[in-house]
Amino acid sequence: MSEASYGRAELVVASVVGEELRSKVGEVFQKECHCIAALKNDVDSIIRASFNYVPVLHQVYDLLVKFREILAWEAALALFAIEVDESVEKAAVVPLESSKSEKKSEKKKKTTLGKGTSIVRQLLKERLSLEADASLENVMNLVRVAHYLAGAFDPKDSELDTLIGNLKEIVESNGARRLPKIPKGTRDFGKEQMAIKERAFSVIVGVFKKHGAVALDTPAFELRETLMGKYGEDSKLIYDLADQGGELCSLRYDLTVPFARYLAMNNINALKRYQIAKVYRRDNPSKGRYREFYQCDFDIAGQYELMEPDFEVVRVLTELLDELSIGDYEIKLNHRKLLDGMLEICGIPSEKFRTVCSSIDKLDKQTFEYVKKELVEDKGLTSEIAERIGDFVKKRGPPLEILSELTSEGSQFLGNSEAVVALDELKILFTALDKSKCLNRVVFDLSLARGLDYYTGVIFEAVFKGTTQVGSIAAGGRYDNLVGMFSGKAVPAVGVSLGIERVFTIMEQLEKDRNQVIRATETQVLVAILGKGLALAAELVSELWNAKIKAEFGLTKRVMNHITRAKQTGIPWMVIVGESELQDGVVKLKSIETYKEEVFQRDKIVEELQRRLGIN
Amino acid sequence: MSEASYGRAELVVASVVGEELRSKVGEVFQKECHCIAALKNDVDSIIRASFNYVPVLHQVYDLLVKFREILAWEAALALFAIEVDESVEKAAVVPLESSKSEKKSEKKKKTTLGKGTSIVRQLLKERLSLEADASLENVMNLVRVAHYLAGAFDPKDSELDTLIGNLKEIVESNGARRLPKIPKGTRDFGKEQMAIKERAFSVIVGVFKKHGAVALDTPAFELRETLMGKYGEDSKLIYDLADQGGELCSLRYDLTVPFARYLAMNNINALKRYQIAKVYRRDNPSKGRYREFYQCDFDIAGQYELMEPDFEVVRVLTELLDELSIGDYEIKLNHRKLLDGMLEICGIPSEKFRTVCSSIDKLDKQTFEYVKKELVEDKGLTSEIAERIGDFVKKRGPPLEILSELTSEGSQFLGNSEAVVALDELKILFTALDKSKCLNRVVFDLSLARGLDYYTGVIFEAVFKGTTQVGSIAAGGRYDNLVGMFSGKAVPAVGVSLGIERVFTIMEQLEKDRNQVIRATETQVLVAILGKGLALAAELVSELWNAKIKAEFGLTKRVMNHITRAKQTGIPWMVIVGESELQDGVVKLKSIETYKEEVFQRDKIVEELQRRLGIN
Repeated sequence: MSEASYGRAELVVASVVGEELRSKVGEVFQKECHCIAALKNDVDSIIRASFNYVPVLHQVYDLLVKFREILAWEAALALFAIEVDESVEKAAVVPLESSKSEKKSEKKKKTTLGKGTSIVRQLLKERLSLEADASLENVMNLVRVAHYLAGAFDPKDSELDTLIGNLKEIVESNGARRLPKIPKGTRDFGKEQMAIKERAFSVIVGVFKKHGAVALDTPAFELRETLMGKYGEDSKLIYDLADQGGELCSLRYDLTVPFARYLAMNNINALKRYQIAKVYRRDNPSKGRYREFYQCDFDIAGQYELMEPDFEVVRVLTELLDELSIGDYEIKLNHRKLLDGMLEICGIPSEKFRTVCSSIDKLDKQTFEYVKKELVEDKGLTSEIAERIGDFVKKRGPPLEILSELTSEGSQFLGNSEAVVALDELKILFTALDKSKCLNRVVFDLSLARGLDYYTGVIFEAVFKGTTQVGSIAAGGRYDNLVGMFSGKAVPAVGVSLGIERVFTIMEQLEKDRNQVIRATETQVLVAILGKGLALAAELVSELWNAKIKAEFGLTKRVMNHITRAKQTGIPWMVIVGESELQDGVVKLKSIETYKEEVFQRDKIVEELQRRLGIN
Repeated sequence: MSEASYGRAELVVASVVGEELRSKVGEVFQKECHCIAALKNDVDSIIRASFNYVPVLHQVYDLLVKFREILAWEAALALFAIEVDESVEKAAVVPLESSKSEKKSEKKKKTTLGKGTSIVRQLLKERLSLEADASLENVMNLVRVAHYLAGAFDPKDSELDTLIGNLKEIVESNGARRLPKIPKGTRDFGKEQMAIKERAFSVIVGVFKKHGAVALDTPAFELRETLMGKYGEDSKLIYDLADQGGELCSLRYDLTVPFARYLAMNNINALKRYQIAKVYRRDNPSKGRYREFYQCDFDIAGQYELMEPDFEVVRVLTELLDELSIGDYEIKLNHRKLLDGMLEICGIPSEKFRTVCSSIDKLDKQTFEYVKKELVEDKGLTSEIAERIGDFVKKRGPPLEILSELTSEGSQFLGNSEAVVALDELKILFTALDKSKCLNRVVFDLSLARGLDYYTGVIFEAVFKGTTQVGSIAAGGRYDNLVGMFSGKAVPAVGVSLGIERVFTIMEQLEKDRNQVIRATETQVLVAILGKGLALAAELVSELWNAKIKAEFGLTKRVMNHITRAKQTGIPWMVIVGESELQDGVVKLKSIETYKEEVFQRDKIVEELQRRLGIN
């Protein structure tokens, strides 16, 4: 029973039985909760001092009895609520029976309630010798059910075992009828989605390989200690594996920490690697947001000339987004040290940098007024300081222009050593990107802050351009201390992570807009046998397979079934063999596009197909 | 401290302190275990009847004190054991100090012991004001440590908090120095392994696509209920996710059950799909056997002509193994219904079919004498019946020969209806495979039984040929009831699963034997800038990237460093730009193979490279 429908059922209960009963149950429950808390304290003190256990154990026993009663009443009321809910619905639906959409929603509701519930209800009615159609709305019946359940929950009573046994039997014999589900926030990639996914991955891997990156594959789960202390508050979203003896493990949360772990573990000082793999986050799933999703990461670790790898990572990001051709985008870019310098200039103490940054980070979704309010009321800045920040973070635009503004005589940044370092680095980076003809994709944006703690230099984020804020599709930056957290030996690194799920969604939409059918297979030839001759098919189609021709075969007398199949799955050629062809030692070659049929000698067909398909 | 070194330490303890002390500790521990068991019973009875708690709580208190003492002694002894172990080692190593290999092994041992242990020891010595180099081998020191620990373990004493606080401090400040680990039974695929993996997958996907299979991707974890009741005894090897609220999930154990779940959930009646993905089993890891490993599955679900998909699945298996070219193999094949018929003929009751099959399945590793013994002594068959089975399961050989033997006049199988069905099916299958020219790969083997319950028809297993039994590398069969377990609607299916890890191992070995360097990247050109000009490099290499040339760049004055890099990573071409080239507006093109250098105008180099690399 879904939460939504339970909510409704409870409302119905409240209106029928009246508030009193429910509030009384609530009161009792509330009181017992206090007792349980008090009991816990008592038990704690026993363990400390070993005295006073007699009354405590008495209390435990009393509480258990009361608890059983409450439980029984809750159960009886729940069953009753469903029944009322159903009868209300039936009453509501009857006059609308001819309406199709209404019928549909009724059907949906029944699925939500689940077969199990009605079984429980039926079983209870049988036990209590109530009529099969006796309504629990009758309060006396309700009391009987609750009383019976209170007895059944008593461990001294064998009734519970019998009840559970009966239930188990029914549920097991019944289990097969329920349709299986998939975990919340996950999804299957069916054939059409796989076709899109494979195309996207091939583009992405192509870019990564063009830049000489090597592939890396790490386990889906890591030791829990590897992930701890890397994600700040987001750690609560990490999926843990159950403790089944042995090590404590968790599913990976991103690909950056496993990469750093890999470098540290293998004492690798330099590596340009890419990894495309699923990561796992126990977030609230929503449209386009999953608990299992792909990330495509490209990172360069090692000592290089200043900005050498930073340039390449940003360049790779532009190539990725250009070659996926999913629409216009921009790359917002900033520098962690510039951000810190800016906050210092504004007179903010360094211990507040992080919390102030997290407010600034909201500027892509909120107005400055909203953020200012937060800075003053929640973060304790003066209104004047908040305004100063506001003046800085409004700065965004073409990188070289903004840079020249920030480095012009009289700029406050020139007096801050951290900021000067950042501005020098950005100058080198922007010049390289300019020479590389992709600086036009970049926007220097002083409001970009990025959440993760481990960034130490350049940070950036790619977003789609347009009126609606669809959020970032890729992000990255420099993290010079992460590998050192594992090995104690610093290995500087910079990287980018592309969130591919949103790209899939956009690509799927583009395909739909183009009204183009996506082929899920690459089959070139359908061997259509007009009959049941498996041996005949096996011989012919195997010759095609041996000749590297992508082929399927079918056995049915009706030639139209073969043709329909070829059309539906986009197979361009058919080789048809019927009785007459068999007798003449020939086969028919049919083009689905032109519908033209040609006859070939049986022993010439493979050669002919190879020629037409360009296979040697 | 690894189990192995702990084992050794314990031996040393035993010889130094004498058996008495240890056996006494053991005795006490044994006795207390009984007490704890008895206590548990008492607590159970309290909960049942609420009486008799006073003496029980007294017992609990006494036990806790004793338990603390035992714990303290175990801890003190463990520390002591390490110390003895170390001093023994030192004594052994000193005269060999000049030997390099010995030094290496000593270093390795220290890593095994771990930094934490020495910290604990040091801390204890400080607390007890023992000299820093005071040996715990001195029994009085040992007693002092144990006594101190027994006190520290008392929750009423604040000493424990102080001790733990100190330890935490040291460990935290020390944590970074420990190298990270990877979970037991998992592995990273570094660049060389990835190159092999990608090659293998491309061959495998090529075969799957040649047969018109569509790709499917399912989540790494499924609802626990989806996996329950599908794997029999092996269910204990399933990895569960922790219960963090919400649904109970487990990591997938194979790809067959998720495939069946997908079909049932989406009401799909026919699908030819492949899936290559990692599966998870909490098995004991050993050489070449992992807890996370790849499976490559190909399955055909749906209603077809008799043996039509069975033929294609076996044919696909031969193509996979042929095209991976990893050595000679054979496919053992049998039929579940023939096996059942055989057991019926031997006079075995149907409820024993499964257990007898599991004995028969051992025939690939054990002699018939061993299996016969098991059948008679464990499974309760008469020696005569076991012999009859033995006569049958010895039959193996070329499929058509064995088939004609089993169907010749007088064959017992002709009187068994199940067996007749199986033999008819096998005849159609073998004929098709024969026409397809791959029956020579198949061995009809009546001893093949296969463990999984869900098989209903043809079963098979591919093994490497040769003297050593390396076990199966692929297996499959028909399972007509699995989808129906989810949806209640039967969808017949047949499939094969290739265990690719062993294939990787073989391919890696083959590469090694060939003494061939596996390139991890595909880079075609190294842009070698003889200096620090990032902007110069950015401009030149970006032009190459824009022209679809796979290129890397480097910034260093030393040309030899560039050349070494190109050689080591197998990059065939270098574009060199130094001061003089820059002044003349030219670049040098160097072939790593011939070492020949040519000079080109700066604006002609991209075109020239495209020509040489065959890129248009």
